[in-house]
Amino acid sequence: MKRKYSVVIIGGGPGGVTAALSARNTYPDKQVLLIRKEKITLIPCGIPYVLHSLEKVEDDILPDKPLENNNVDLEVNEVIDIKGNFIELRNGEQIEYERLILAVGSKPFVPPIAGMDKDGIYFIKKDIDYLKELKDRVEQSENIVIIGGGFIGVEVADELLKKGKNVVIVEMLSSLLPFSMDPEFGNMVREILEERGAKVITGIGVKEILGGRKVEFITLHDDTKYPADLVIVATGYRPNLDLAKKIGVKIDPRFGIITDEYMKTSVDGILAVGDCVAKRHFLTGEYSKLMLASSAMAQGRLAGSNLFEFKVIKEFAGTLGTFSTKIGDTAFASVGVTETQAKSLGIDYIVGINETVDRHPGKLHGASKIYMKLIFSKYSHLLLGAQIKGGDSVGELINMLSVMIQKKMTDIEIDTLQIGTHPLLTPSPIAYPVINATVNAIMKWYKR
Amino acid sequence: MKRKYSVVIIGGGPGGVTAALSARNTYPDKQVLLIRKEKITLIPCGIPYVLHSLEKVEDDILPDKPLENNNVDLEVNEVIDIKGNFIELRNGEQIEYERLILAVGSKPFVPPIAGMDKDGIYFIKKDIDYLKELKDRVEQSENIVIIGGGFIGVEVADELLKKGKNVVIVEMLSSLLPFSMDPEFGNMVREILEERGAKVITGIGVKEILGGRKVEFITLHDDTKYPADLVIVATGYRPNLDLAKKIGVKIDPRFGIITDEYMKTSVDGILAVGDCVAKRHFLTGEYSKLMLASSAMAQGRLAGSNLFEFKVIKEFAGTLGTFSTKIGDTAFASVGVTETQAKSLGIDYIVGINETVDRHPGKLHGASKIYMKLIFSKYSHLLLGAQIKGGDSVGELINMLSVMIQKKMTDIEIDTLQIGTHPLLTPSPIAYPVINATVNAIMKWYKR
Repeated sequence: MKRKYSVVIIGGGPGGVTAALSARNTYPDKQVLLIRKEKITLIPCGIPYVLHSLEKVEDDILPDKPLENNNVDLEVNEVIDIKGNFIELRNGEQIEYERLILAVGSKPFVPPIAGMDKDGIYFIKKDIDYLKELKDRVEQSENIVIIGGGFIGVEVADELLKKGKNVVIVEMLSSLLPFSMDPEFGNMVREILEERGAKVITGIGVKEILGGRKVEFITLHDDTKYPADLVIVATGYRPNLDLAKKIGVKIDPRFGIITDEYMKTSVDGILAVGDCVAKRHFLTGEYSKLMLASSAMAQGRLAGSNLFEFKVIKEFAGTLGTFSTKIGDTAFASVGVTETQAKSLGIDYIVGINETVDRHPGKLHGASKIYMKLIFSKYSHLLLGAQIKGGDSVGELINMLSVMIQKKMTDIEIDTLQIGTHPLLTPSPIAYPVINATVNAIMKWYKR
Repeated sequence: MKRKYSVVIIGGGPGGVTAALSARNTYPDKQVLLIRKEKITLIPCGIPYVLHSLEKVEDDILPDKPLENNNVDLEVNEVIDIKGNFIELRNGEQIEYERLILAVGSKPFVPPIAGMDKDGIYFIKKDIDYLKELKDRVEQSENIVIIGGGFIGVEVADELLKKGKNVVIVEMLSSLLPFSMDPEFGNMVREILEERGAKVITGIGVKEILGGRKVEFITLHDDTKYPADLVIVATGYRPNLDLAKKIGVKIDPRFGIITDEYMKTSVDGILAVGDCVAKRHFLTGEYSKLMLASSAMAQGRLAGSNLFEFKVIKEFAGTLGTFSTKIGDTAFASVGVTETQAKSLGIDYIVGINETVDRHPGKLHGASKIYMKLIFSKYSHLLLGAQIKGGDSVGELINMLSVMIQKKMTDIEIDTLQIGTHPLLTPSPIAYPVINATVNAIMKWYKR
């Protein structure tokens, strides 16, 4: 029996689920099917926290309830090929579709390090059984080496330190979080991890993983050696292009499936969202491989809303990455272009800096220091990037700055911005960092 | 000896200080003087918190250091009149100015209640000695009645409950926070205060304050009677127009000094900022008497930057009030138009609602529920207002929404917004309330 659906989504992560819900909302009369391989889906950004902060891996499950409640059919199955308007499943069944959304995600990048086949080397995979095994191995291990100092690497390090493990974290580039934050912020993260006992190594890579069948040591390129009962590799992800290659949609092998601004691939009727898609940088339009659940979700909403005609028109082109995290008790966040990136892109930029406290008066209980750095285009005066270190309020403060970049706000416009403040919730109006860092930037170009 | 300054600011609150610093930044060669009556200035929004959360009233001092560091002369003196380009001080001295900024603030409104002359009736004044006296009286009192259920009233109630006092709070209108939040939010505040032991009375006013020389009881208009060792009156403020009347600048007696969008009064060379100024509603352009330190500061920056020519051009007209507060462990915030206001303004509106949790997965430690209500113009599709109940992140979330209103974002544009999320700092990307409440609103007008 051949089944038929108006809309089929392949992949059950945030991009796939959002696309399905958005399709359902926009086309209430269409039949919508979501097919995924995994019996259970995890909340991707919660995965590092299953190692300590969450009691069980099951506490990080992405619930299926929204799909059920919205009358989206869910099928756990594997799609092995797509031919014309038919999907072929592992069990030989075929499903006809009118519109197909690929949300097939990414796979951990396996760095070219000798000895990667030993027992005790784990990746951060979105697989519940694999993560349960990793969680057990963490419990049994004393010395743990993390390869990769991006967001996932430092979050895993933080979790393992909370567990009292001996943690070594190795980042090949010269500072932690090298792709999303400038070195001074990377160094703040480093200090926090070191204070709590981690060995942080930057600017040198791992040469080899040593041991018998099981990992025992790692060596760096300068031949220093660290004992390791367990190695966790967090060196990024690569788009999952297996299915895309079979179908023949246009891809960039490094960055992912090529789509237009509305997530349409080169094949009529097939769209793609999330980690498997090449993102266009909001400023340069160049491809990048930014992989964020929140970006996947924005794409999913857009794809689901425009399946049969243009309904939801974008005003902001490209992908703007907004990251936030918390290391120890300190939150870090970043949006848009860093100073390092501004330099390498050849942008004539101005930096605005502000340091303040996130409560007022600062003597109120629970106050944390905020350090904010803004990057403006010197001549266009547009806000291009922001980085923050501070308390928990950083999580929404960076979203406010993200809105400002997406709405192309200038320094002078931010100077005239009206905001709200409260002693127990925000910095003082006189010390409000978004405005004061902007004024700091203005003062650098301003001459009478 | 006659002194001469290019720029003179009268008043040392947030508006005055920001105007002075902004004038200094924009006109580095001009002499800037700030004259204020008070030896010591307080952080206005911190004042309720001197009653309990801050140990001493002195912990709420607005420091003079920024003025000193920026070479703004500070003089504690009283301005009694202004004649032409000369300021007359209490001591008979005259100061010549080129540009004058009035930042003379507001005075507590004294409601027409019988018995207001008794001992034991206090207002929330920006006066350090008066507040020290009030703090002492609070310590000695058991039964305290608060008249007025706006932000200051509920914040004072919260502080007094933390001290273990018997608190009665009386709001004449039908719910708490009647001017800034819809009744369902006012009722959430009510519940929190009641749970902690307060008697909350709404929809009826205080008729009389009874006692001998000293206050002993209050009676309501239905003649119910409550014992009171102390009465704190928080029924709003009125613009301080004493000086404005002498100078002859155009005023509206209820709302304050009339200025243009750039804070210029009807008298050449004289500007005004802050509580003493009539605000124009961002939507209707009508006068209102919104009094917020953050609004005063936005006006101060604008006035200080444009004293001698137009340098900083506004893109957003009118005043947009953004409020936030915390009652017990729950934060509340509001920006723009409430549903009640939308109705009374005759706006054809759509409401979007979302309920979620501010961490993801919700099982993470420290998660609070968020309830968000957005008001959109039904046909223009613009975001006009937002109200939130939630955890501390509400303080910056409301500023993000304030930016969205100021940038005139539509529902569809918010639907395509890119944001960042993190398990320990924000709701999940799939549950992000700004987007989901917007989608909820879209679904109400959306028909195929």
